[in-house]
Amino acid sequence: MAKPYVIGIDMGGTNTAFGIVDARGNVVASDSIKTGKHSNFDDYVDELHEAVTRLINNNDAEGKINGIGIGAPNGNYYTGMIEGAPNLPWPSPIPLAKKITEKFGITCLVTNDANAAGVGEMTYGAARGMKDFIMITLGTGVGSGIVVNGQMVYGYDGFAGELGHVIMRRSNGRMCGCGRTGCLEAYCSATGVARTAREFLEIRKDDSKLRELDIASITSKDVYDAAVAGDHLAKEIFEYTGNILGEALADFTAFSAPEAFVIFGGLAKSGDLIMNPIKEAFDKNVLPLWRGKVKILFSEMKEADAAILGASALGWEIKE
Amino acid sequence: MAKPYVIGIDMGGTNTAFGIVDARGNVVASDSIKTGKHSNFDDYVDELHEAVTRLINNNDAEGKINGIGIGAPNGNYYTGMIEGAPNLPWPSPIPLAKKITEKFGITCLVTNDANAAGVGEMTYGAARGMKDFIMITLGTGVGSGIVVNGQMVYGYDGFAGELGHVIMRRSNGRMCGCGRTGCLEAYCSATGVARTAREFLEIRKDDSKLRELDIASITSKDVYDAAVAGDHLAKEIFEYTGNILGEALADFTAFSAPEAFVIFGGLAKSGDLIMNPIKEAFDKNVLPLWRGKVKILFSEMKEADAAILGASALGWEIKE
Repeated sequence: MAKPYVIGIDMGGTNTAFGIVDARGNVVASDSIKTGKHSNFDDYVDELHEAVTRLINNNDAEGKINGIGIGAPNGNYYTGMIEGAPNLPWPSPIPLAKKITEKFGITCLVTNDANAAGVGEMTYGAARGMKDFIMITLGTGVGSGIVVNGQMVYGYDGFAGELGHVIMRRSNGRMCGCGRTGCLEAYCSATGVARTAREFLEIRKDDSKLRELDIASITSKDVYDAAVAGDHLAKEIFEYTGNILGEALADFTAFSAPEAFVIFGGLAKSGDLIMNPIKEAFDKNVLPLWRGKVKILFSEMKEADAAILGASALGWEIKE
Repeated sequence: MAKPYVIGIDMGGTNTAFGIVDARGNVVASDSIKTGKHSNFDDYVDELHEAVTRLINNNDAEGKINGIGIGAPNGNYYTGMIEGAPNLPWPSPIPLAKKITEKFGITCLVTNDANAAGVGEMTYGAARGMKDFIMITLGTGVGSGIVVNGQMVYGYDGFAGELGHVIMRRSNGRMCGCGRTGCLEAYCSATGVARTAREFLEIRKDDSKLRELDIASITSKDVYDAAVAGDHLAKEIFEYTGNILGEALADFTAFSAPEAFVIFGGLAKSGDLIMNPIKEAFDKNVLPLWRGKVKILFSEMKEADAAILGASALGWEIKE
């Protein structure tokens, strides 16, 4: 029988947050350490082990941990390694699952952040009971976690679900961090929204509260605040963003015919400002057989807990 | 234990071909009837039953059939129905699996043509042993069968894998039969190749053997013959087609990270004429992490047998 708790670890470039999670998706206790403090990866694992053990002991959870799940940038579910993550101080590949499993004596599974969010949504969130859905994470980048037949799609090499890098504009597309042009991520990430704001402000002449800000340092939050205050240009920026995302979701539907898309991350807080144009563009662009039939939902995971929750859900996959 | 044979039925608008297939993918015997002869669907089922029973009896296969698989236009694996197929004479939906199962006393599974080809390739063809691959069928249209974790992807409603209707050209895209514009199918089907030929011949002024033909009735076969004979314009038509398909496969890789793409159908006979530009465009357009790592193969199913073989493979899924 499964033990009553799992550990979720959200490993970011700056902080590593972790928590003890129960079967209902409650984060019983959580804490964090600095990721970049140790130039040696083994020292990082030692500090993480010490901090997690303290959390376990303080919450009477010794011997009650079913497994450890880690969401990490470029984390590979099959190999348990982190491969080529630009924001981590250790040489690639990093044998994360192996080191953690050895140090803790508890089996550890690894995946990337967006897949972790997908597993979390399926285990505790808006996609409970769904066997076919696609998680779209709108943060600094655009990530995705694809679930088919109740299973996360990892692909042949473990790197499936890079939907932020599907090409949405084949001519005059924006430069993307991946070195190509026209990727979904270049338009629909938080940074993409800020780029759209700068483009609109440069090219157009109409009034906008956004003109009062320093254009070079404008953020998606600034655009949101302006839109909520009724600014027309800011609203159009969300329409532009949602329109491209809706076009993309229409194409993704032709792939796996999901029951739902679940939208997660900072931009999801924009609510109807982004959801309305997404839905409108989706129905306009999707094959007629799916028109009006695919749910587009916001995540139901609390954002503060989501990364830990998502990672922790992997801990339930372990049967020993 | 599974019985030694399965029946594969390939239901087209004109003919319904069927055969007895063994576990190694040999078509032991085959025959066909006219699909459109009966305005009443039950009469069609009666004739099909009679013809298949005759084939079974003539080949000493009574009591040795493990199951029946049918590939049919718009066939839905989950419901066993044909839903909204424009080229069939019976009212939609058609309860195909139910009627066949009842009439034959043998369990019958249904899927669409492209998914059948995918199951066939996995069971008997180039994708044997692969758990993650995508079948692309290039015929009158462009179809696809997607396999993830060793399972065909049917999606929430059974209609997944409509990759011929992913949008490849968002501005000035060609009209597609689905009512939208810019679909992959409008460029990379056999009819798409013929359209490209007509466009090239109208817009360009350079010499070509194709100018000797009646432009309005030019076919992809004409373009192939001219290309093989060294015609530059015809070769460029294949480059144009392969380039768009390579761009599409690059995007599909971001979805499910397949081990391979398997190309099937009439255009696959064009060999290097189409394969070289596909591979070149794929490597140019795919995310760097997959460059040079995804196989692009031609189907290994004999075309004459492929539709029956593909459909028959469903018959092995039945465990009774």
